Amino acid sequence: MTPSIQPVILCGGAGTRLWPASRGARAKQFLDILGEESLFARTLARVAGPGFGRPLVICGTQHVAMVRAQSGDHAPRLIVEPAPRNTAAAVALAVAGASPDALLLVMPSDHIITDVAAFHRAIGQAASLAREDWLVTFGIEPERPDTGFGYIASGAPIGDSAFAVRRFIEKPPLKDAEAMLAEGGYSWNAGIFLFRAGAMRAAMLTHCPAIFEAAEAGFAKGAENGDTLLADRTAFEAAPSDSIDYAVMEKHDRVAVVPVAMGWSDLGSWQAVHALAGCDEAGNACAGDLFALDSRGCLVRAEGKRVSLVGMEDVAVIVDGDDILVMPLARSQDVRAAALARQ
Amino acid sequence: MTPSIQPVILCGGAGTRLWPASRGARAKQFLDILGEESLFARTLARVAGPGFGRPLVICGTQHVAMVRAQSGDHAPRLIVEPAPRNTAAAVALAVAGASPDALLLVMPSDHIITDVAAFHRAIGQAASLAREDWLVTFGIEPERPDTGFGYIASGAPIGDSAFAVRRFIEKPPLKDAEAMLAEGGYSWNAGIFLFRAGAMRAAMLTHCPAIFEAAEAGFAKGAENGDTLLADRTAFEAAPSDSIDYAVMEKHDRVAVVPVAMGWSDLGSWQAVHALAGCDEAGNACAGDLFALDSRGCLVRAEGKRVSLVGMEDVAVIVDGDDILVMPLARSQDVRAAALARQ
Repeated sequence: MTPSIQPVILCGGAGTRLWPASRGARAKQFLDILGEESLFARTLARVAGPGFGRPLVICGTQHVAMVRAQSGDHAPRLIVEPAPRNTAAAVALAVAGASPDALLLVMPSDHIITDVAAFHRAIGQAASLAREDWLVTFGIEPERPDTGFGYIASGAPIGDSAFAVRRFIEKPPLKDAEAMLAEGGYSWNAGIFLFRAGAMRAAMLTHCPAIFEAAEAGFAKGAENGDTLLADRTAFEAAPSDSIDYAVMEKHDRVAVVPVAMGWSDLGSWQAVHALAGCDEAGNACAGDLFALDSRGCLVRAEGKRVSLVGMEDVAVIVDGDDILVMPLARSQDVRAAALARQ
Repeated sequence: MTPSIQPVILCGGAGTRLWPASRGARAKQFLDILGEESLFARTLARVAGPGFGRPLVICGTQHVAMVRAQSGDHAPRLIVEPAPRNTAAAVALAVAGASPDALLLVMPSDHIITDVAAFHRAIGQAASLAREDWLVTFGIEPERPDTGFGYIASGAPIGDSAFAVRRFIEKPPLKDAEAMLAEGGYSWNAGIFLFRAGAMRAAMLTHCPAIFEAAEAGFAKGAENGDTLLADRTAFEAAPSDSIDYAVMEKHDRVAVVPVAMGWSDLGSWQAVHALAGCDEAGNACAGDLFALDSRGCLVRAEGKRVSLVGMEDVAVIVDGDDILVMPLARSQDVRAAALARQ
């Protein structure tokens, strides 16, 4: 019998790019950005059912209450980080508590995947490789020369549907992104990984032993309370802060990519949200009460207020509590400046 | 001794053009649109002091409380209209209660005049004509070919600083407005009038007797309560609804205009408000808490909220209660559509 996949959901992000809706304890992953459920709840639902084990959530202390409130029937185990140490240390915590042969599926908590069946098929393909000690990453087939993502260059094929990773490319200039799109054989790095716990442990002990040992000690000395383990602060804080991409994936020699088209988005800006939101015939997407006259292509999040637009095009109007953000959607990358000013 | 001027302030407007700030009982005249005092309070202050008698305010029942609250030490008398019947009937109420030789200075409650000394000089010039039974209107020297105002064509001079009115021109097409500006001898009709009560009474009995008689009966049968007279509903409601311009001024043969440059604005749109508001070096004018990045020429009324603009130009963001209006300032004339939709 195939061992089940152990979902590991990384829930430590703050998500200021969707300010003012996302901030503080109510981070992006906990918002119902596309209506109905939160991104976190959708992530949990996406890896529930036959073939998946009980999920594990790694989060910070400020997010424990939201995780519990939004977990519904999924009853995840929690490992709580006493301080943020980026994704390598978070993955190390999950590995430290797993049996060596467990297959861990690590994923962010704030992305959207519309074709879940395609995701599940890719997980099946990746699991076969993970059993052979490949560290597998999922590559998103690029739809445009986006400069906001890292890229993965595919190398030699492994079987029908995977490739050895030739190299990782950091967020590229537009010229390079266009060239990769034209050449083919590149995919976006979505930060979703599947591996055998023992294989990742060995890779970490080779490439980033300080991170792994700090996380392992933090786990071993952690305070358990029912389903929740609070990692030991002193031990865990000793971990250098680094991403799993930098610390392990880019250095390891047995990394595979499974390319997949699954309607993925990181919803990394209000513009990305607008692209996925349900729009009316004028291209306006609204959560809440909107009156629009001669207005097109706008994104409105009214949050209990009544927004009236007259003659506006391609702008975002985001209301949250006492804050109202107004900007062209094309300026979505500059939200952080406002978020910082309004802290 | 020169008899004093009796100010008559018409306070019946609703002012939806500054929606959502202006609405219902809190009409435009009661707002501190340019900071500090309301337009109504500024109007009262403008006609207080030597040479002016006790002011009379004509308003609707829904505005009595605001008038009282914002009258400060001016202690005006009030005549309350049980139903709105436009400006002719309002002027008739004031005339009905005045001695024939009283000089009535009728003016709207929601305009701004920055050069009050020039206004007072013009009042002195107009008073001389009013004593000779001219119905005097004040003509604003036009600064641009505005299509939002009526125009007054000057005819033969009367003394040094006044003219007989040749004709009134309704809000003109741009072409006609440009031609008038080029030709000279035209001024904007600001709806400010000075006349002897007896002269206006005679003119109304000639040109609009039904209006005057209904208002006079409404006044005579009205219910007095201290400084406030509530006109009799049945009698007053019989008055046809018409403006003082149409009902009297355009028909009378002894109408004079005193042209005056006095920093006048009717603040008839958010664009007009922006033009008069104090702006920062980027041309942004804000009442409230604004963070602006790469934003120019905007008008923000934050009303207790925090507005953040990124990359916006020449837009209005008006917050009031549960309503948020966003539009280019150039679309200010279309506010009414939003106001109607949000009633």
